[in-house]
Amino acid sequence: MAAQTKILLDESEMPTQWYNIIPDLPTPPPPPLHPGTHEPIGPDDLAPLFPMALIEQEVSSESYIDIPGEVLDVYRLWRPSPLYRAHRLEKLLDTPARIYYKYEGVSPAGSHKPNTSVPQAYYNHSEGVKKLTTETGAGQWGSALAFATAQYGMECEVWQVRASYDQKPYRRTMMQVWGATVHPSPSDLTGAGRAILARDPDSPGSLGIAISEAVEAAVGDPDTKYALGSVLNHVLMHQTIIGEEALLQLAKIGETPDLLVGCTGGGSNFGGLSFPFLREKMAGRMNPTIRCVEPAACPSLTKGEYRYDFGDTMGMTPLVKMHTLGHDFIPDPIHAGGLRYHGMAPLVSHIYESGLVEAEAIHQNECFDAAIKFAKSEGIVPAPEPTHAIAAAIREANRAKETGEETVILTALCGHGHFDLKSYEAYLSGELVDYDYPEEKVRAAMANVPVIA
Amino acid sequence: MAAQTKILLDESEMPTQWYNIIPDLPTPPPPPLHPGTHEPIGPDDLAPLFPMALIEQEVSSESYIDIPGEVLDVYRLWRPSPLYRAHRLEKLLDTPARIYYKYEGVSPAGSHKPNTSVPQAYYNHSEGVKKLTTETGAGQWGSALAFATAQYGMECEVWQVRASYDQKPYRRTMMQVWGATVHPSPSDLTGAGRAILARDPDSPGSLGIAISEAVEAAVGDPDTKYALGSVLNHVLMHQTIIGEEALLQLAKIGETPDLLVGCTGGGSNFGGLSFPFLREKMAGRMNPTIRCVEPAACPSLTKGEYRYDFGDTMGMTPLVKMHTLGHDFIPDPIHAGGLRYHGMAPLVSHIYESGLVEAEAIHQNECFDAAIKFAKSEGIVPAPEPTHAIAAAIREANRAKETGEETVILTALCGHGHFDLKSYEAYLSGELVDYDYPEEKVRAAMANVPVIA
Repeated sequence: MAAQTKILLDESEMPTQWYNIIPDLPTPPPPPLHPGTHEPIGPDDLAPLFPMALIEQEVSSESYIDIPGEVLDVYRLWRPSPLYRAHRLEKLLDTPARIYYKYEGVSPAGSHKPNTSVPQAYYNHSEGVKKLTTETGAGQWGSALAFATAQYGMECEVWQVRASYDQKPYRRTMMQVWGATVHPSPSDLTGAGRAILARDPDSPGSLGIAISEAVEAAVGDPDTKYALGSVLNHVLMHQTIIGEEALLQLAKIGETPDLLVGCTGGGSNFGGLSFPFLREKMAGRMNPTIRCVEPAACPSLTKGEYRYDFGDTMGMTPLVKMHTLGHDFIPDPIHAGGLRYHGMAPLVSHIYESGLVEAEAIHQNECFDAAIKFAKSEGIVPAPEPTHAIAAAIREANRAKETGEETVILTALCGHGHFDLKSYEAYLSGELVDYDYPEEKVRAAMANVPVIA
Repeated sequence: MAAQTKILLDESEMPTQWYNIIPDLPTPPPPPLHPGTHEPIGPDDLAPLFPMALIEQEVSSESYIDIPGEVLDVYRLWRPSPLYRAHRLEKLLDTPARIYYKYEGVSPAGSHKPNTSVPQAYYNHSEGVKKLTTETGAGQWGSALAFATAQYGMECEVWQVRASYDQKPYRRTMMQVWGATVHPSPSDLTGAGRAILARDPDSPGSLGIAISEAVEAAVGDPDTKYALGSVLNHVLMHQTIIGEEALLQLAKIGETPDLLVGCTGGGSNFGGLSFPFLREKMAGRMNPTIRCVEPAACPSLTKGEYRYDFGDTMGMTPLVKMHTLGHDFIPDPIHAGGLRYHGMAPLVSHIYESGLVEAEAIHQNECFDAAIKFAKSEGIVPAPEPTHAIAAAIREANRAKETGEETVILTALCGHGHFDLKSYEAYLSGELVDYDYPEEKVRAAMANVPVIA
């Protein structure tokens, strides 16, 4: 047998436009509101943080936006990314389902994040910005931005949550290899950090605190802006190159998906894979079920309320309408750090609320069990985040085995797990806790969500 | 500009034969000798350790050997591997040279090692072997074999040098994810290990000790054999798929290399890249300079003697004629663990002695400096071993800048450095020592090399 394993695209076939789903939706998503006035925010409110090109993309009514040549030049270091047919996993599962995965771990930073860090660095560079600041937890986003800024000769300053800074030094070193400066957060370099340290000198930090520090450092310096790795419309749009490529790749082999599954944390990987397929579905050209998969311990879509809330823990960002567990909800310490977010991208939330996609939540032991099956058959050791999508794909493949249906499943393997082997060690040692939905903690956090008239 | 960055091959273009250079050489390499009798060894001497198919490949006089379909099926998980044109590095160096690198870090284990671990597992499995044993240092080879055995449902038992087992636990966990059992070496599971532990209960271990343990565990069990990741003829032959693909890829863009540079430790990466090009050179179809690059601290080709010596520290293996620094020479602790070997593959040694290839040695700070330049421009963070080849390529690109020549340079980027960031941290902190050639230590070690009549 010589069944095709990888469906490749030549560089000349790489999409040259991102897809903006907003104009195609039945209703527009609700606008972000100013945290003080509760009025819709305008471009000027965002200008201290983002370059005008990205602000325009955030509110664009164009369906397609050209990818600049200088961004395509960098994308070509790893794009188009391969689409795999999971022959060996199918055989292990003894399923009639055909499973495909789009692998984003081929990027230098090892995840889908450079799809947006590169254009963000580019547009900032084009508008004369010299330095970008950002926050990072385990380091996926921070390393993606460090890589991107290196490509345009910019500086990069990253506030990394102290617990990760101390416990997972390798991502930090990777950022430094690309020339970034990395601070543990809370730091004494910002007012926000100093305020936290004054209260708790041993604070392990949090993503919310790190965001506050990175934002503060950006607004205080005219040559510096801030970059966010998920949640915002323009970030999800940059990721649509994943789905656009996958559409081309499936068309090459005459395949149409019955089901898309993608893990959802902030929503950028899921949006990137699914929005182009959702366009095809809304246009009646295919009819896949599209499913978000989230951790049972942090189930913003399946358990959260759809209402206005802050994007950060400290309540400094605009108010956005999204599925939220409350902005000061602190998820239990599951290993999929990228999915430990209290809210969901407003765009994914809006689409979910519109009934265009569905969602399910899975416990982490099932995810790591799926990951081991995947690694033993397909070779790649996945990051903890996409193990949620793999677990969902395996659930569906097992259902197909019962029904005998040749279900075509597509998922995004958004990153490798080379920096997450401590999590695998914990799983293999039987130490992983299956945290359930923390109803009491969420109720307490939701009580702090502002009420918008 | 839309200059092509990656030259890809379709799976249908993947070579289906390995190249055995031996029949094409002007003279055959000297035979391995029995350590006791000093007579050439025969297949029976190797049968306790290796399956007959691999023993036959070791001494084959066929120029090409078909790659089995079940091996090609697994190769397709990552092969054909991409050939990159290093546009962004060239720009950084402001050189007229055109630099190409064949990237083997796309394999699930992250290096070129699965090119041989997969066929080794396959042939053993075909002959009814249930388990493979091996040694590993930092874990590149151990993880490649763990991945390969998982593909054929075999067991894998790895003795990992204790210092690495304790200090670099992530490669160990990766092996466990693929189902391997990993022991720190010296262990109390073998006579060799127990003997070492009796003398020194806190022994940090060495590759030589780990080899002894893995070999002992294999010969004592009829269902178990042993696998070696470099040095042997059949191992280098399995790696020739690298060079065969690179030839096809360069031909696609009408390019002929002026210079090949490859790092040399045991010789498998270098042999894999260069032997197909050496065939073309010997046949007069191209005339590239082909250069081995080794660490200044462990310069077996540039400083070692060409004579019969043991492959392992304990003196248990057959005697092979190679460039050696003495089998009990312990190299200084440079970070390119895969290049810390006292000898060189007999086949690479023979070819070097025949004047077909040249060699140079480089200190590690120059290598890491080259690696940082590479990572900032090309994105990929290289493993410490191929930084030697990158440093050599940069030397040549700088020479081309002086002369104005459009030199075409090809190198093999044999693995990523995701598990080597501790080494980068040491470099960035200015802690890396440029160990010189340890003349006294080598003289002492050479005094213990047996004299063959």
